[in-house]
Amino acid sequence: MRALVFKDANLTLERDYPLPTPAAGEALIRVLRAGICNTDLEIVRGYLGFQGVLGHEFVGVVEEIYGDDAAKRYAHLKGQRVTGDINAACYQADCAYCQRGMTTHCPQRTTLGIVGRDGAFADYLMLPVENLYPVDAAISNEEAVFVEPLAANFEIFEQVHIKPTDSIAILGDGKMGQLAAQVLTLSGCEVLMIGKHEDKLDLAAQRGVRPHVLKDAQSFALAGGRRVDVVVECTGTAQGLEMAMRLTRPRGTLVLKSTVADKSTLDLAPIVIDEIRVQGSRCGPFAPALRALSLKTVDVLPLISASYTLDDGLAAFEKASQRGILKVQVDI
Amino acid sequence: MRALVFKDANLTLERDYPLPTPAAGEALIRVLRAGICNTDLEIVRGYLGFQGVLGHEFVGVVEEIYGDDAAKRYAHLKGQRVTGDINAACYQADCAYCQRGMTTHCPQRTTLGIVGRDGAFADYLMLPVENLYPVDAAISNEEAVFVEPLAANFEIFEQVHIKPTDSIAILGDGKMGQLAAQVLTLSGCEVLMIGKHEDKLDLAAQRGVRPHVLKDAQSFALAGGRRVDVVVECTGTAQGLEMAMRLTRPRGTLVLKSTVADKSTLDLAPIVIDEIRVQGSRCGPFAPALRALSLKTVDVLPLISASYTLDDGLAAFEKASQRGILKVQVDI
Ligand SMILES: [Zn+2]
Ligand SMILES: [Zn+2]
Repeated sequence: MRALVFKDANLTLERDYPLPTPAAGEALIRVLRAGICNTDLEIVRGYLGFQGVLGHEFVGVVEEIYGDDAAKRYAHLKGQRVTGDINAACYQADCAYCQRGMTTHCPQRTTLGIVGRDGAFADYLMLPVENLYPVDAAISNEEAVFVEPLAANFEIFEQVHIKPTDSIAILGDGKMGQLAAQVLTLSGCEVLMIGKHEDKLDLAAQRGVRPHVLKDAQSFALAGGRRVDVVVECTGTAQGLEMAMRLTRPRGTLVLKSTVADKSTLDLAPIVIDEIRVQGSRCGPFAPALRALSLKTVDVLPLISASYTLDDGLAAFEKASQRGILKVQVDI
Repeated sequence: MRALVFKDANLTLERDYPLPTPAAGEALIRVLRAGICNTDLEIVRGYLGFQGVLGHEFVGVVEEIYGDDAAKRYAHLKGQRVTGDINAACYQADCAYCQRGMTTHCPQRTTLGIVGRDGAFADYLMLPVENLYPVDAAISNEEAVFVEPLAANFEIFEQVHIKPTDSIAILGDGKMGQLAAQVLTLSGCEVLMIGKHEDKLDLAAQRGVRPHVLKDAQSFALAGGRRVDVVVECTGTAQGLEMAMRLTRPRGTLVLKSTVADKSTLDLAPIVIDEIRVQGSRCGPFAPALRALSLKTVDVLPLISASYTLDDGLAAFEKASQRGILKVQVDI
């Protein structure tokens, strides 16, 4: 099959990549469409140490289910359009995480296109059947590819009690910030987005988000030195994190949605002095994201900057890594 | 002016009711439209002991602001279309509630059309300027009348951390249940509505709510004896409350949105045995409700069963008290 493979620090389109190996309890999925995420770009830049087929945001069709048990219990999924939770947990009796339902934290897990498991930029992928979610007819393929990153933003509501009168600031106007803003807006809150790009801030403003053009991060302050109840850091930079700490009110919450890649020194004293809660946040629940897409309470299509075929997959990655580009999707 | 007045156990339309008396810090509002709420019906049935002009769900235009200070500081409101928080607090330095910002719990408060203050079914009403919220052009008069009851449902998010993977059941398919369902659906949760009227359940189903027709409250149980994380009691009956306790999972939350009018004996042991949190819930924040209406993430217009002019106000109350009727509005 065709596959976009990262190996020996090189991304290449292979045409005779082997089909995923059948494994009991797993489904073979014919990929319809997949999206490029910042994590994919970081892998290509040599972070994370993954080798194999990239991609974890996808929608596809279940072609085959392996293992008699799974094939019987999940027969209704066959031929279904699905998306899937990217973490494949061990589900062993001696795994304290799996036993507490915290499968996305299972230490033995593989993660689609990120850790130990080939991903979605290929004709086929494999995932455990428990991971799959049917996609209803109201959701297009283009939209379904957003389920995974939307779910990651619904995770914020799982972790933090966001009240409808809270003030929220999103740091960063990129694809992660845009999705965070749309999901957080559902809370009824006033959501502020702080970013550098007027066109992207305009996009968020169309969903009721108040835009704030950032001119100088160093001397940045909101009017009247105002600080907000909840800050969501979506820039992934040390500078962003520093600004986020200054922006979070005493005893407020700072949600970290992206790992700070650069290792510059950070003064973490404000967290202690202001008793800020810093909440790391990663993968989230798929079902609420699917419900939001089905109800059209979020509108993800304007976030697609470009689409490519898998045959042009290298160009897709090239495009996705350019400044100012939001989501790039690949039609498989 | 014209006014629908409840006095000596009688509701009458008066044509020469005196205009509200000017008071410093208050605004005279020309009422455009108002809605009939269950509380209004309870007042007319003799509960609550209120005498005066009924009505607290309204939209109107600011005609005059009294007091030099208020007139100057709130000059921008003059001529504005507004709705208003119905609780007029004392804001005194020795009021522990006002000092903590809990103005809706101020013991000295008056409440529009409910306690010590004439209400909205009249040509004019008065409210403190601090209580007013401009209504943006995206919101029609018909929709703006729903701001107060919508706000009361956003109050649930203020009080309880609803997670997007929680299971929610709304007990009751009337106007209160319908609004609760629409607001709670914004959380991303799967919301179940339990009611007796198929047409009303259908209405909720159109907003993604799962309907469950109640045939027999006594022997009622969800499939597999399932219990849910959060139950919102919107029937206002002892039977509803009993069912709500059976339906809430151990350590779950039971939100009480309406006072149980009938005094039949209730076995409250399940609350202790199952460690249920029972959360009384009344008035809520207006700004999130206005944002939701402006963004069109809620759709209240299908909840209007009938509209009348103020001259036909008595007929409006007659209609609103009939079984099966949702919201009745009065065009002033
Ligand atoms: Zn495990
Ligand atoms: Zn007070």
